[in-house]
Amino acid sequence: MNQEYPSTLLERAVKEFSKLPGIGRKTATRLVLHLLRRNESEVAAFSEAMLTLKREAKYCKVCHSISDTDICPICANPKRDQSVICVVENIQDVMAVENTMQYRGVYHVLGGVISPMDGVSPSDLHIDTLVSRVAEGGVKEVIMALSSTMEGDTTNFYIYRKLSQYDVRLSVIARGISVGDELEYADEVTLGSSIVNRTPFNGKTI
Amino acid sequence: MNQEYPSTLLERAVKEFSKLPGIGRKTATRLVLHLLRRNESEVAAFSEAMLTLKREAKYCKVCHSISDTDICPICANPKRDQSVICVVENIQDVMAVENTMQYRGVYHVLGGVISPMDGVSPSDLHIDTLVSRVAEGGVKEVIMALSSTMEGDTTNFYIYRKLSQYDVRLSVIARGISVGDELEYADEVTLGSSIVNRTPFNGKTI
Repeated sequence: MNQEYPSTLLERAVKEFSKLPGIGRKTATRLVLHLLRRNESEVAAFSEAMLTLKREAKYCKVCHSISDTDICPICANPKRDQSVICVVENIQDVMAVENTMQYRGVYHVLGGVISPMDGVSPSDLHIDTLVSRVAEGGVKEVIMALSSTMEGDTTNFYIYRKLSQYDVRLSVIARGISVGDELEYADEVTLGSSIVNRTPFNGKTI
Repeated sequence: MNQEYPSTLLERAVKEFSKLPGIGRKTATRLVLHLLRRNESEVAAFSEAMLTLKREAKYCKVCHSISDTDICPICANPKRDQSVICVVENIQDVMAVENTMQYRGVYHVLGGVISPMDGVSPSDLHIDTLVSRVAEGGVKEVIMALSSTMEGDTTNFYIYRKLSQYDVRLSVIARGISVGDELEYADEVTLGSSIVNRTPFNGKTI
């Protein structure tokens, strides 16, 4: 769609908005014109919140998750099991696992996965600090919770090699049929994996 | 979903983003974390573009569309037919009609439609200036291009009453079957209207 904008200021704001993932020109225009209808103080609050976040966001020195403090609340929490580290790609994944309320250990945010196609090599990720945490001792288990993609698998294997010299249990999150999914529509790899990695059944499915 | 944010700065930015229409907390988090991965100068450009737009946007003194100048490029264009005014709700609608490349007249942006439910009365809209434009003379036709809703119809009728004393032709855009739609799925009102308002057929459907 060759949309002509009646104002260059409008066009620039739309352009900035459409750089965001999943936001096309049409959605961007709608969002920008919505903001334009709000008070100047509201627009200022919106603009300022983003810039302040970028300028002042801190990252936990232990797990690299975003934090207001040098050590994030999870790493600093004495009730969390510091001997279990869940390795995730990014901050969203920390929040996703936290939302399950099923995990009481700590995290390690890699900042991505190894992807030669996208120019992401192991040195671009927080792998060294993960190895240091394990080398320091006190870590019993490292749970790999990366995406089930080729890049995720490559990263799993790379970390497996790096950690193999240490006395630490390595595990990956279970791959299987999603809750609510019908068997006939599951792909063969997932279904196969869910049979191989079947779990003991005690009468309760969840 | 009761999502706990590991950082208050992050939470505030997500909150601001989720005020936008159609952006939930999950999408907002994704967008904010995407911005966080960009350079500070890019985030600054994003923030600044919105605030500058809000602070410096001008509106055309004739048609109230957004503009960089006192009179917008459409109103100032001598090639546009100044005797035909297309009345629309907002700036998006101006862009939508422009994109059709079917219209060579000018516009009048009301800034909304009459909606007692939302507290929008005729005095909140640019109706007076529309009446003035017609009263000044030189306007042959006013095309009402508002949404086909109760509020749109109310506004159409209100403007019809206001303009009835002037020698001007009033029309509304055609309601009918959308191009590509199947008849059996069209609602009765639209289908009925498309039969009543049928157009001469010269062998070409479009």
